[in-house]
Amino acid sequence: MKNMFNYHMPAKLYVGAGISGEVEKYIKGDSVFIISDPFLYSNGAAKKIGESLKGKKVTYFSDIEPNPTCESVDAAAKEARAVKADCVIGLGGGSALDVSKIVSCLTTNEGSIYDYYAGGTRVLGKRETTLMCIPTTAGTGSEVTNVGVYTNKKAGIKMPMVNDEFWADYAVIDCELTYTLPKGVTASTGMDAFCHAIEAYWNKEANPICDMLAMRAMKLVLDNVRTAYSEPDNVRARSNMMEASLLAGIAFSQTRTTGIHALSFPLTTEFHASHGVACAVTLPAFIKISTEEEAGKMQLLAAYLGFGTVKELAEGVERLMRDIQLPTKLGEIGVKESDLEHITEVGLSAAIIQLTPAKMDSETIFNLLKSIL
Amino acid sequence: MKNMFNYHMPAKLYVGAGISGEVEKYIKGDSVFIISDPFLYSNGAAKKIGESLKGKKVTYFSDIEPNPTCESVDAAAKEARAVKADCVIGLGGGSALDVSKIVSCLTTNEGSIYDYYAGGTRVLGKRETTLMCIPTTAGTGSEVTNVGVYTNKKAGIKMPMVNDEFWADYAVIDCELTYTLPKGVTASTGMDAFCHAIEAYWNKEANPICDMLAMRAMKLVLDNVRTAYSEPDNVRARSNMMEASLLAGIAFSQTRTTGIHALSFPLTTEFHASHGVACAVTLPAFIKISTEEEAGKMQLLAAYLGFGTVKELAEGVERLMRDIQLPTKLGEIGVKESDLEHITEVGLSAAIIQLTPAKMDSETIFNLLKSIL
Repeated sequence: MKNMFNYHMPAKLYVGAGISGEVEKYIKGDSVFIISDPFLYSNGAAKKIGESLKGKKVTYFSDIEPNPTCESVDAAAKEARAVKADCVIGLGGGSALDVSKIVSCLTTNEGSIYDYYAGGTRVLGKRETTLMCIPTTAGTGSEVTNVGVYTNKKAGIKMPMVNDEFWADYAVIDCELTYTLPKGVTASTGMDAFCHAIEAYWNKEANPICDMLAMRAMKLVLDNVRTAYSEPDNVRARSNMMEASLLAGIAFSQTRTTGIHALSFPLTTEFHASHGVACAVTLPAFIKISTEEEAGKMQLLAAYLGFGTVKELAEGVERLMRDIQLPTKLGEIGVKESDLEHITEVGLSAAIIQLTPAKMDSETIFNLLKSIL
Repeated sequence: MKNMFNYHMPAKLYVGAGISGEVEKYIKGDSVFIISDPFLYSNGAAKKIGESLKGKKVTYFSDIEPNPTCESVDAAAKEARAVKADCVIGLGGGSALDVSKIVSCLTTNEGSIYDYYAGGTRVLGKRETTLMCIPTTAGTGSEVTNVGVYTNKKAGIKMPMVNDEFWADYAVIDCELTYTLPKGVTASTGMDAFCHAIEAYWNKEANPICDMLAMRAMKLVLDNVRTAYSEPDNVRARSNMMEASLLAGIAFSQTRTTGIHALSFPLTTEFHASHGVACAVTLPAFIKISTEEEAGKMQLLAAYLGFGTVKELAEGVERLMRDIQLPTKLGEIGVKESDLEHITEVGLSAAIIQLTPAKMDSETIFNLLKSIL
């Protein structure tokens, strides 16, 4: 007997330019708690959504850092409980969405995030507060995953928490929210989406549903990220990038990621590269070795994306990264040869690295990193 | 503002050869009510699943006809209530799955299906009984839709009921259950899956997620239905057909269907064609006119499926239908020229017909039907 695959992605998706201003109809209850990045509070984006919720009591929380800490989560949960939030809206990049997931649970689950995570012994009960995720970057796909990543400052680690209560009730995908993204964020988050897609596609846990969504996501990134980068208010490019991020998010929500993400963890926490940069920098090198176990499938992908060979796909992706000013060498983000052994070790400690379609051991990873130093 | 698309398909999918014998782990509660077609009870398939549920009290119900009536539904609901079913399992083709959907709701909603449907004024409350759908044909996709179709014998009509409580908690896709399908059923249900996919793809409510799933579903049917037809226990062909049906089901669960299904209704109820036959017979003719509003998208599809033009795709599908002994002319299922006006009228009365990518009026439909008389 062979269990070919499982699939479960229960979020209700609403996709369209401008629809984040029309979410009132999905919200039951009176008290809405909007969690956003500080920038989205100061630029008025969070308030614009809050003000569209006629007759609701809206509370804003924006004390969120880029790699959100458990302390931020607990502070947000305290406020959400105080206002008896019926609905938690996460508005932002990955950080705000990740915080909204756990906070929407903590409104009716007592205690701290530490009680449920990273050695905590309590189990989250059924979420009773509505959770709506509204992404403002086209990259993380966090709106369609059941994962939140939180930083335990005391222990100095960043750890994912996976929980079925983290599936959003509503994922609202509005490309208008990305028009004001800085160029560098457009580039790095766009390549993060590409990594999600390709890591779902070549994943040892790949499945046909995710394969198809991932293929389309990669094509959309290749065809649109340059334009989104150079023409920030090009509606078609922004809309296509948002779609790419969504489809890639659904894909990797089922398969998880692989070596690219595993190695991104030390590059983010220790070298302070943004998540997308930390992922993209090893992407071309991983494409090259993916043929070790998935030659046929990768050749099909290369052809679908308009390349003759997998090597040409890797080169095309590297060219694209240069065009949108992303580093393609580890040296560009401050990594020295003497760091490679440590990065290898930390990367290998992430279980997802074994979902890569190539033998993942110290030697392979060290050599891969050295090839792009 | 443009709402590009919505998407929601919350069922948990478990896909694999033989996994219908391993469902015990998903079932909470003690009382399981298995609804199956009579054939699946007499051949032992229902009992095999029931007997795998160690320590559960299992009740079987198999008094289900091909186009299930409201009376059958009420009879099943009465028994399910009597045994206080915690879980309803639907095992079968479309009929048994459709009955299981409404029965799983009626266990904790009082009254008859007539109270909630076809003029009934009550609204189904939240379903409290677990619903598991296990398809035994590769075609209907009913396991991943929120639709049930029931026949009101008194009024002489067959009507779909759409309800979010009809999404299965678990859809268990086990191709081993299709090895014993008669050839004619393999052929007709396989083409039903193709129709679901193409009707989702060219649909006015099409969306990118469904497009990708539909494309793969169509390719799988074209590549596998001949083998599944001629070699009933070819595992690869059966598994691929099951996957096709699943992906096509997800696709049309979001978009609904179009003219092919609209015209199938009178062909089923009045000319007693099976559902798949009634759909497939107009499929090549509809492919030909789909270019009226979707020329570019249909050309892309033809290329993806290995055809030079949309016309060649239509011809290829017709050839395939002949190879698997399906009628390609209305005359073969007993339709006479004098029937065409009535079929046109009934087809046009179905709202879904207006989701077809061509002008749908009496003249067009009459001519389409006449072209395949």
